Amino acid sequence: MIFVYILCCVIPFYIWWKIRDGFRIHNIDDKYILITGCDTGFGNHAARTFDRKGLRVLATCYTEEGAAKLNAETSDRLKTIQLDVTVPENVKRVSEWVDEIVGSSGLWGLVNNAGIMGTLAPMDWLTLEDIRQPIEVNLIGLIHVTLALLPLIKKAKGRIVNISSVGGRVAASGGGYFSSKYGVEGFNDSLRRDMKAFGVKVSCIAPGLFRTPLSDPQTVINQRIQIWHKLQQDIKDQYGENYIAVGKYFK
Amino acid sequence: MIFVYILCCVIPFYIWWKIRDGFRIHNIDDKYILITGCDTGFGNHAARTFDRKGLRVLATCYTEEGAAKLNAETSDRLKTIQLDVTVPENVKRVSEWVDEIVGSSGLWGLVNNAGIMGTLAPMDWLTLEDIRQPIEVNLIGLIHVTLALLPLIKKAKGRIVNISSVGGRVAASGGGYFSSKYGVEGFNDSLRRDMKAFGVKVSCIAPGLFRTPLSDPQTVINQRIQIWHKLQQDIKDQYGENYIAVGKYFK
Repeated sequence: MIFVYILCCVIPFYIWWKIRDGFRIHNIDDKYILITGCDTGFGNHAARTFDRKGLRVLATCYTEEGAAKLNAETSDRLKTIQLDVTVPENVKRVSEWVDEIVGSSGLWGLVNNAGIMGTLAPMDWLTLEDIRQPIEVNLIGLIHVTLALLPLIKKAKGRIVNISSVGGRVAASGGGYFSSKYGVEGFNDSLRRDMKAFGVKVSCIAPGLFRTPLSDPQTVINQRIQIWHKLQQDIKDQYGENYIAVGKYFK
Repeated sequence: MIFVYILCCVIPFYIWWKIRDGFRIHNIDDKYILITGCDTGFGNHAARTFDRKGLRVLATCYTEEGAAKLNAETSDRLKTIQLDVTVPENVKRVSEWVDEIVGSSGLWGLVNNAGIMGTLAPMDWLTLEDIRQPIEVNLIGLIHVTLALLPLIKKAKGRIVNISSVGGRVAASGGGYFSSKYGVEGFNDSLRRDMKAFGVKVSCIAPGLFRTPLSDPQTVINQRIQIWHKLQQDIKDQYGENYIAVGKYFK
């Protein structure tokens, strides 16, 4: 009896899944999609995947090397540009560049992927600047890129995908990363409501822990060890030498 | 039968409520509590209430007038100081002032109340600066004050209460307010975990819509009308003259 009940629940989902999977985007080779942070990780993977599928990918990279490598690995359709989302002149230059390329068809998609982890350490080890850094990149930078490209996205009745994180729902450690990603969830929700009337879809993806350069545990450990050596003695005494020694197991 | 069932659920809660209500803080007149943003609203109300109960209130005010008025209305125990949470020198001065006053007993409580609404308007009406402003005050400023006072709070095994908002759970409009308050929820959760081992309690209060100067609807409407007049014609056309005319009903 329970088995029949489960089947009745599962089958409609399965059918819907298959139908949805069959949906195809029409005239895919007319459509421009901008992805930020394409040097490595999700951004790089998305740029290469969408390029392979035939979309016109505009990939922003933080480094010139990242851009060169991506260019070498992808089709001629894919174009790259350097972008540090925290530098206003960069954001302006990119939005002008996109405007020139997409013209009257507008920007069909924006994937706000660029992000950093910043320093992950107990809150009382950190300076305001440690905490501000990921907020400037992940939250303020993401908002800036979105605002700059919004007129072009509205023109195409496009879609925006903000890459948040499971860290935008649960704060697992000290550091500014979690505040920044919680903030992205808030911005996403504000924007989603405001853009609905214009036929612009706004979504948020909250990935868990994936093995990308962002979440490399060795980087986190190294940062912590560096901070530890600069900490005031009274804080070191409160935590005890054994606290940081844990890092050695990861080495 | 249902009545008995409900009673069985309600009575234990009622008893627990009464017991909890009977808890008293010992040696209340030894305890220092710092509250930010005491000019008006919740901060002002909290400062006057805690002063009346006998706590030693350290009230930070944004304006000199706010400080003078609060001083006139409260006991000699309550001390005020001017603080703009976005000015690093201000935060440093306040933390030194608190250190001098509380001495070896530390800071028993911190209420991070100072906040602004910023501009509430559709996202495509706003500049990055409009959105950044509430993030700088409500999130970065709150974090800065907390980090600056954390050693004194740890010394007293104190408690921190961060005033978030229902807007830290649901983003009801465009503007940076919601991102900032979502961010506070994230910071609160990070800090709560990190401070548990030190006996420091970290809580978050998320008030709904209360009639305080922060949420004055006339201010919101006036801001929107001001922005409207500066908007590019194409955005005005997209929204239509009727959109802003709604504001007139509130006048």
